[in-house]
Amino acid sequence: MSEDKLKLNDDKTGFLRKRGILERLDAGEVVIGDGGFVFALEKRGYVRAGPWTPEVNVEHPSAVRELHREFLRAGSDVMQTFTFYASDDKLANRGNSAVEIGCQAINQAACDIAFEIANEGDALVCGGVSQTPAYLSGKGKESCQSEFERQIEIFLKNDVDFLLAEKFMAPFLNATGKATAVSLCIGPQGDMHGIPTGECAVRLAHAGADIIGINCHFGPDECVEACRLMKKALDAAGIQKHLMVQPLGYLTPDASKQGFIDLPEFPFALEPRILTRWDCHKFARDAYNAGIRYIGGCCGVEPYHIRAVAEELAKERGKLPSASEKHGPWGEGLKLHTKPWVRARARREYWENLKPSSGRPFSCSLSRSDNWGVTAGDRYLLQKRENTTNEEMEDVIRFAELNKQAVIGDH
Amino acid sequence: MSEDKLKLNDDKTGFLRKRGILERLDAGEVVIGDGGFVFALEKRGYVRAGPWTPEVNVEHPSAVRELHREFLRAGSDVMQTFTFYASDDKLANRGNSAVEIGCQAINQAACDIAFEIANEGDALVCGGVSQTPAYLSGKGKESCQSEFERQIEIFLKNDVDFLLAEKFMAPFLNATGKATAVSLCIGPQGDMHGIPTGECAVRLAHAGADIIGINCHFGPDECVEACRLMKKALDAAGIQKHLMVQPLGYLTPDASKQGFIDLPEFPFALEPRILTRWDCHKFARDAYNAGIRYIGGCCGVEPYHIRAVAEELAKERGKLPSASEKHGPWGEGLKLHTKPWVRARARREYWENLKPSSGRPFSCSLSRSDNWGVTAGDRYLLQKRENTTNEEMEDVIRFAELNKQAVIGDH
Amino acid sequence: MSEDKLKLNDDKTGFLRKRGILERLDAGEVVIGDGGFVFALEKRGYVRAGPWTPEVNVEHPSAVRELHREFLRAGSDVMQTFTFYASDDKLANRGNSAVEIGCQAINQAACDIAFEIANEGDALVCGGVSQTPAYLSGKGKESCQSEFERQIEIFLKNDVDFLLAEKFMAPFLNATGKATAVSLCIGPQGDMHGIPTGECAVRLAHAGADIIGINCHFGPDECVEACRLMKKALDAAGIQKHLMVQPLGYLTPDASKQGFIDLPEFPFALEPRILTRWDCHKFARDAYNAGIRYIGGCCGVEPYHIRAVAEELAKERGKLPSASEKHGPWGEGLKLHTKPWVRARARREYWENLKPSSGRPFSCSLSRSDNWGVTAGDRYLLQKRENTTNEEMEDVIRFAELNKQAVIGDH
Amino acid sequence: MSEDKLKLNDDKTGFLRKRGILERLDAGEVVIGDGGFVFALEKRGYVRAGPWTPEVNVEHPSAVRELHREFLRAGSDVMQTFTFYASDDKLANRGNSAVEIGCQAINQAACDIAFEIANEGDALVCGGVSQTPAYLSGKGKESCQSEFERQIEIFLKNDVDFLLAEKFMAPFLNATGKATAVSLCIGPQGDMHGIPTGECAVRLAHAGADIIGINCHFGPDECVEACRLMKKALDAAGIQKHLMVQPLGYLTPDASKQGFIDLPEFPFALEPRILTRWDCHKFARDAYNAGIRYIGGCCGVEPYHIRAVAEELAKERGKLPSASEKHGPWGEGLKLHTKPWVRARARREYWENLKPSSGRPFSCSLSRSDNWGVTAGDRYLLQKRENTTNEEMEDVIRFAELNKQAVIGDH
Repeated sequence: MSEDKLKLNDDKTGFLRKRGILERLDAGEVVIGDGGFVFALEKRGYVRAGPWTPEVNVEHPSAVRELHREFLRAGSDVMQTFTFYASDDKLANRGNSAVEIGCQAINQAACDIAFEIANEGDALVCGGVSQTPAYLSGKGKESCQSEFERQIEIFLKNDVDFLLAEKFMAPFLNATGKATAVSLCIGPQGDMHGIPTGECAVRLAHAGADIIGINCHFGPDECVEACRLMKKALDAAGIQKHLMVQPLGYLTPDASKQGFIDLPEFPFALEPRILTRWDCHKFARDAYNAGIRYIGGCCGVEPYHIRAVAEELAKERGKLPSASEKHGPWGEGLKLHTKPWVRARARREYWENLKPSSGRPFSCSLSRSDNWGVTAGDRYLLQKRENTTNEEMEDVIRFAELNKQAVIGDH
Repeated sequence: MSEDKLKLNDDKTGFLRKRGILERLDAGEVVIGDGGFVFALEKRGYVRAGPWTPEVNVEHPSAVRELHREFLRAGSDVMQTFTFYASDDKLANRGNSAVEIGCQAINQAACDIAFEIANEGDALVCGGVSQTPAYLSGKGKESCQSEFERQIEIFLKNDVDFLLAEKFMAPFLNATGKATAVSLCIGPQGDMHGIPTGECAVRLAHAGADIIGINCHFGPDECVEACRLMKKALDAAGIQKHLMVQPLGYLTPDASKQGFIDLPEFPFALEPRILTRWDCHKFARDAYNAGIRYIGGCCGVEPYHIRAVAEELAKERGKLPSASEKHGPWGEGLKLHTKPWVRARARREYWENLKPSSGRPFSCSLSRSDNWGVTAGDRYLLQKRENTTNEEMEDVIRFAELNKQAVIGDH
Repeated sequence: MSEDKLKLNDDKTGFLRKRGILERLDAGEVVIGDGGFVFALEKRGYVRAGPWTPEVNVEHPSAVRELHREFLRAGSDVMQTFTFYASDDKLANRGNSAVEIGCQAINQAACDIAFEIANEGDALVCGGVSQTPAYLSGKGKESCQSEFERQIEIFLKNDVDFLLAEKFMAPFLNATGKATAVSLCIGPQGDMHGIPTGECAVRLAHAGADIIGINCHFGPDECVEACRLMKKALDAAGIQKHLMVQPLGYLTPDASKQGFIDLPEFPFALEPRILTRWDCHKFARDAYNAGIRYIGGCCGVEPYHIRAVAEELAKERGKLPSASEKHGPWGEGLKLHTKPWVRARARREYWENLKPSSGRPFSCSLSRSDNWGVTAGDRYLLQKRENTTNEEMEDVIRFAELNKQAVIGDH
Repeated sequence: MSEDKLKLNDDKTGFLRKRGILERLDAGEVVIGDGGFVFALEKRGYVRAGPWTPEVNVEHPSAVRELHREFLRAGSDVMQTFTFYASDDKLANRGNSAVEIGCQAINQAACDIAFEIANEGDALVCGGVSQTPAYLSGKGKESCQSEFERQIEIFLKNDVDFLLAEKFMAPFLNATGKATAVSLCIGPQGDMHGIPTGECAVRLAHAGADIIGINCHFGPDECVEACRLMKKALDAAGIQKHLMVQPLGYLTPDASKQGFIDLPEFPFALEPRILTRWDCHKFARDAYNAGIRYIGGCCGVEPYHIRAVAEELAKERGKLPSASEKHGPWGEGLKLHTKPWVRARARREYWENLKPSSGRPFSCSLSRSDNWGVTAGDRYLLQKRENTTNEEMEDVIRFAELNKQAVIGDH
């Protein structure tokens, strides 16, 4: 363990090793995760929507650094390396040129940045192992193994605090000796193979995960509900594991089983669904009440959302985050506003009861999901290195139109 | 003029002075402004909502620098110094401690950052002169004069390219010899004193403004409409001036005369109103068609919104912005998505026709504005150095409740 | 004057002639009109949407009689003969076979029924003179004259209490010696020829109308606002006339100049816009406060809507209608409900503050109007006796699709 | 069997007894029920909302007669006597004076009217046995028996074609020798005692019901789904029974287990939820596809809704109803409209795809239900002969406010 991962605890008199993720969770502490790098950096101009690959770590490290710092200031206890979709097969998919930089260079740059900012505070570094398109293409677990190993090699070399991965990777992680978190992108309806959400959790526990949870694909309500189902099933099986939840920064009451990707607004018209900070207060309280202690965010969750989580749980954590210096709880800063009717909004009951209007009277409140019903192995899901052709585009557009007909005649 | 404000023009063989704002507009070019610093940096944890003062320039310059750079990459031709509300009386209002840093230190730091990033590209630096609460408190123009002079002194010392200010400051600006833009925070209904929007433009022209326009308080539709009224009145008066428009990044069809500040969602629940990038395409085209050539954004406008403006006007400008490297026009990047139904969305007609749902079935589409009907000089608008007291809070809350009763019984 | 139009006034000691419409209005009394026969009887299965002609008077008199009786019980002081669109050219338009019954037979049957029910109470009979398609076909006033004369002949023969007609008929009516009401189907934006709403009222006054007002095409808010504009213009011209308002039973905040006909929901999907009885309370109060004393309804206004008007104005009128025997004010009957949470709704403040949800999360709150911009004389408006051909249908559908494209790209 | 219940079948050469309900259903025919009398006659001014008792049969028989006739013309094959809530204990509840007329006089008048109109066509008469408040008051089945017997006595005396009742009455009905339909006011979530919907159907089958189904409390989607669950359970149990469905004329996607009574709009602000005729086309097709052959409506279903059901199933039934003389399928009558853009709407694809707007931008699309969670036996549900007192009203209002607090903080 190198010196730069040591840090002076404020209330102690010397350099001390940071307390690890399990140490914190075992002590019953709330651990706050960070938010979504892919979507935030897409809006800032550094990540391309579609491939969503994280070459920005190498191309514009200061942009990644600044976002990490914002989350740290907002209260995040964990800096997750921005290594989503940094598997070599994804970096090469459908003409993506990021493969020229390559998985290992990206992961190393991501580790460098994450450690630098983590050490501006008391945060831990988590190595985020990415899924690979080889899986969706139906190539099976074996052919995915080398993709994982190349990623993990860098995390181990940098001695990250713990690893975070998806379902079927759990066995690989166990061999590393690191604490492991496994988080699923599913909702309360279970996974794409028909396995109920609770049963998924039990299987992950048996596969050796230390922390089990839900992230992405659904908004806070659905994710917390999914975690509740996990907890219930784990309790019923007599298993005790830490729970984590990192939902979208979007409301998705209308998402079907596959989550927000199927909503017609994904990914470029999700704005009306963005959570307010008050939605995050509610989320943090709901998650806490459900027994979840690792609480963060995924796509769409911005620093101010994480700050809201930290402010809601300030009492439980015994502290406010740095960024609260610029944010009174429940809008208190508005007491300094020049307009009196805005000063009248500087109170909890105002914001807690407000149902925000959309300003979009020609839009609906809910959407019908695309439901193509194709799963791993389907021809439409095969990944490839060549660009998408015009013929392929015409084919999928035609299929999409057909699907749309099916819901015609709805109210 | 110091060397760091010179720059190599791509098509020439030596160092050349950047072409000024009027030179560009006189040549019929589209000039793209930047977006909103106050709201973006509030969400990133550096600016306090309520006072909204820009001490972040001194406290966390890297955060301001990064945001400038994002706008530059998104296509902004102008770096406006982040000096909003940096007048000493505002920095001291109602207990704000930013007055200890002071207007001039903040403005100097803001200039340093703006010039640094402007010179990473071909952007100009605009000095943003801030309004002062002295005005709302009814102290009159004279007592405001020293507040303005302290601000402008720094801009002149740094030799900014041009100045941007509000209505009644126009006379002060003329004396500086700089090109001047004057932009009003009003909509199509005219100003708070009952002067029609078009007439406001004619008065500004007579007061010597080179560029006249509209910013903040309303979304794109209302701001472009207000500019149309300005153009019509200027044309009728036989005056030719450049027009600028920098609307909110929010939809505000329901805002009353005072704009979004009166909407109940201001400022902490505006999320469902956030523009999509496609709303910005429409805005850019509408503004261009209305004859406006200085097109940017205000509060809520993020870098990806500005990129959308630049992409919509790529043909007119003969170029795409740097950040488009990570963004195909009209969602083309989605051709690289793993899911076929998302690949089917990689086309203009999909996004242009989509009306995004809010995911909020328990919310409305429009809101009723607070309409206190108080104006400059009213006791409720008096500013002061002391914190807002509990008695004052109770008073404004009571008044707000009374106002709410008035719209009860609506459909 | 025949005996059957005499009636015992409750507070007098003998048979007395009913007091006429002007007598009542001159005395400052509130006169309550009836509601919409066309739409109500369409839903009951007796009137055909499209032609909208009133042959039901001859074919199923009991259905008309029952609806008149419901309005009488609900508080209507006037039984307007159901003679809308009973001009011979309309009865023959585009293959309509009702011309075989003919205008005069229909009007006679309508008079018979109206007098029968009026005499079950203290109601007056109003002869409704119908517009003719000859006008829209651009045939001019002269060619319309005989259409009017055939209608009016029956009303005079039956000695109706007063006549109600549209704009350009006013001169014909004056010659009859009857009191005349002239009501326009316009909103606050003025008529299709660009004449402001207020100016229309002044012209009607000069043409000799005794009662001037607004009906159909818009909901209560727009109709009352239009009447306000009329009153303002009449006051400015020093003219004193009685005002009448008979709005739709639908909310139409999004209707453009031509009103609800242009809304895409017209006429078969207007349900979500139907007024609640509480909307009618508000309407009645607004109308009364605007100085209007003849208050009724048009298409979509059902008996319970009229009862709500009568209940809101019970104090001003000194009485409740018969149908209130089965309706406590402001939901008082709910005190007898079996479920306690419904009993808790038996109070004014509950219903007055409720904003009713649509149960339609996949619908919008507002619509874009069809705006073909064609007016009298346009080839698309020519009427004819033959059925609409398939070619004509394809033509109008194509034109409608083109129009729809125009609003694409809206938010 | 008296002569007036015989009728000439069109395809036979003499007087023949009408074919009974089971004869029709056994032959695989679609039987169309009628709609909702309580809500329709409330709006027409003859029934009081709250007690909802049917004394109108005696007080204003022509109003009931006219509504029956409208349903007959719209295609109803069954005239259900309007005897809802005509049990003597309900007629006396909380000060209701209808008890002075009494259950048996009301039922006799209702039978007279139903037979009269049924014999204007080929319709059957169904005796509707009403639930009694004695049940909700927790008095048990025994104390309810005499209430039922007094009702049924009249139906048997008049020799109705079949009886329709609620769950626990099934045993009483069997003894009558009449065909029996038993319909539950539940949705897909099962009954208030936790019994799943499918299981309810199996129990009704065992109790001897000939026709089993769902009515009231929910809109078409939920009712058809509930019937699907019933069919699935009956199939699994190897039981074959006829299914019936008679949903509300309102959309209730947001209703909780107790249905629309718990929605805040019940009963005076349900307008925005009213079905369009096109919603009814969809309902009829869904119900038919689910294997249901007795298809009608309950509260809120008006004659034109039933006509839409009959028009959708015209091919299956081999005929159109009389009222279709005044209604072309899918809006064909609009071909006779004067305005060309309305003529362009005379086609199925226009109406089938239209999502109607509410015209209510300050309302939501969904509501939160009141969920008091009280059931039979709770003190709040006790019925009594005295009027509700002010103290009781204050108590329930207080409880309602408390309940409302519970959902505060929702998105």
